Amino acid sequence: MSVTLADARRVIEAAEKRADEIGQPMNIAVVDAGGNLVAHVRQDGAWIGSIEISISKAWTSKAFDISTKDLGDNSQPTQQFFGIHTTNAHGRGVAIFAGGVPLTRDGEVVGAVGVSGGSGEQDQTVAEAGAAAF
Amino acid sequence: MSVTLADARRVIEAAEKRADEIGQPMNIAVVDAGGNLVAHVRQDGAWIGSIEISISKAWTSKAFDISTKDLGDNSQPTQQFFGIHTTNAHGRGVAIFAGGVPLTRDGEVVGAVGVSGGSGEQDQTVAEAGAAAF
Amino acid sequence: MSVTLADARRVIEAAEKRADEIGQPMNIAVVDAGGNLVAHVRQDGAWIGSIEISISKAWTSKAFDISTKDLGDNSQPTQQFFGIHTTNAHGRGVAIFAGGVPLTRDGEVVGAVGVSGGSGEQDQTVAEAGAAAF
Amino acid sequence: MSVTLADARRVIEAAEKRADEIGQPMNIAVVDAGGNLVAHVRQDGAWIGSIEISISKAWTSKAFDISTKDLGDNSQPTQQFFGIHTTNAHGRGVAIFAGGVPLTRDGEVVGAVGVSGGSGEQDQTVAEAGAAAF
Repeated sequence: MSVTLADARRVIEAAEKRADEIGQPMNIAVVDAGGNLVAHVRQDGAWIGSIEISISKAWTSKAFDISTKDLGDNSQPTQQFFGIHTTNAHGRGVAIFAGGVPLTRDGEVVGAVGVSGGSGEQDQTVAEAGAAAF
Repeated sequence: MSVTLADARRVIEAAEKRADEIGQPMNIAVVDAGGNLVAHVRQDGAWIGSIEISISKAWTSKAFDISTKDLGDNSQPTQQFFGIHTTNAHGRGVAIFAGGVPLTRDGEVVGAVGVSGGSGEQDQTVAEAGAAAF
Repeated sequence: MSVTLADARRVIEAAEKRADEIGQPMNIAVVDAGGNLVAHVRQDGAWIGSIEISISKAWTSKAFDISTKDLGDNSQPTQQFFGIHTTNAHGRGVAIFAGGVPLTRDGEVVGAVGVSGGSGEQDQTVAEAGAAAF
Repeated sequence: MSVTLADARRVIEAAEKRADEIGQPMNIAVVDAGGNLVAHVRQDGAWIGSIEISISKAWTSKAFDISTKDLGDNSQPTQQFFGIHTTNAHGRGVAIFAGGVPLTRDGEVVGAVGVSGGSGEQDQTVAEAGAAAF
């Protein structure tokens, strides 16, 4: 029911294809139902600062069963979840900006893909391409 | 192709000169292409809280190939990268305010300088003076 | 000169083949010259506790240009590096047991592979198989 | 009474000279009376894993007003301080192997130098050369 390595590779392959199309090298991470990393790749030239962010986005998306983009909308100052990005001091950082997208099977979130390396819009389209291949 | 200790010392010397001119003691750090520290100095009287910040600024600037000032503009509430400052829980903190400037060679970012100890404007001018000497 | 994603995939493929041969699912991580993660996979059934360890082993091996097995021999009680495993509080943990092996090009260590998921002997043979494919 | 940047540079210069003599590139860090970093250099080719260790050694040496070599002798299994290397979870790691040496003025420890990059014996001789120049 969770995400196999073969699943993760299929998601990453589709995400990489989209990243190549838009010409922006990316970090791409996939986590399983437990929020644990299944696979990660950093495309040549992608930011080293985005390694951890791609994993954080994937973790966050599964951890709350939501896209990080939608979580982010609710986490701005004055919004209901403002401050959530600093709550997990002993674990993964909570990412509250676009690029983390749930992986769903039979209506249930069983994992997530996280993408970091470009603008929020670029990260989102690459993550969505990955999730679509799941 | 990366940053040697001699490079780092030249950058720090120029940054220190600028800090002396404006009369504000600073922490100055230089990282290489892998984001790893090459050298750091704390001028007499500079804040001890700025030791780590100067290193974080240098790391951040190389990690995302951008000045921390420009990154900060995109990391304000409602902007596309809001929340990025807490994402790297397992590594260096991501700094989203002025004072981190990339070091560029042949059009490629091969390192960065990070400065902390004064106002954003002061940190920025000292970091830029350092980068100009690279 | 450093490790490309294609390099990392070749290393991981060879390491996975060896893990399959010995029938022990593994986490396999590859870092570049700066110690930054290039790629990671967790084979189906591999321990989730070994995700971080595989990355730590790869980082450690590059960070000190040595196999973690050899570092470990020098890090036992009364040996010269005893205690090194807790020194990097602000970065990656230092791994002092078998499974991290340098990736060498023209006599220079330009990256490393880290493997975790079995006994020390199993981790080591899988890491060596990966490194041999570099 | 504490360690100025000029002091730290004199210590580092002497330590670098000794490192060059023995042909082993080093990380060298100096902290002041408060245990806070004054300056750090990584010589070309020195291990990136030793950046943090050099700072930890300097911090530890000042934090307990003792050389890390002597502290290490008391921190082996069955000795009185065994376990001290993991006590500072929220701060600097405590280093319990050679390479951290106090800087003394008028019989008082006012800072320390930490060296990492070679064997325990090499680290120690470089740190002692640095301290002698204080």
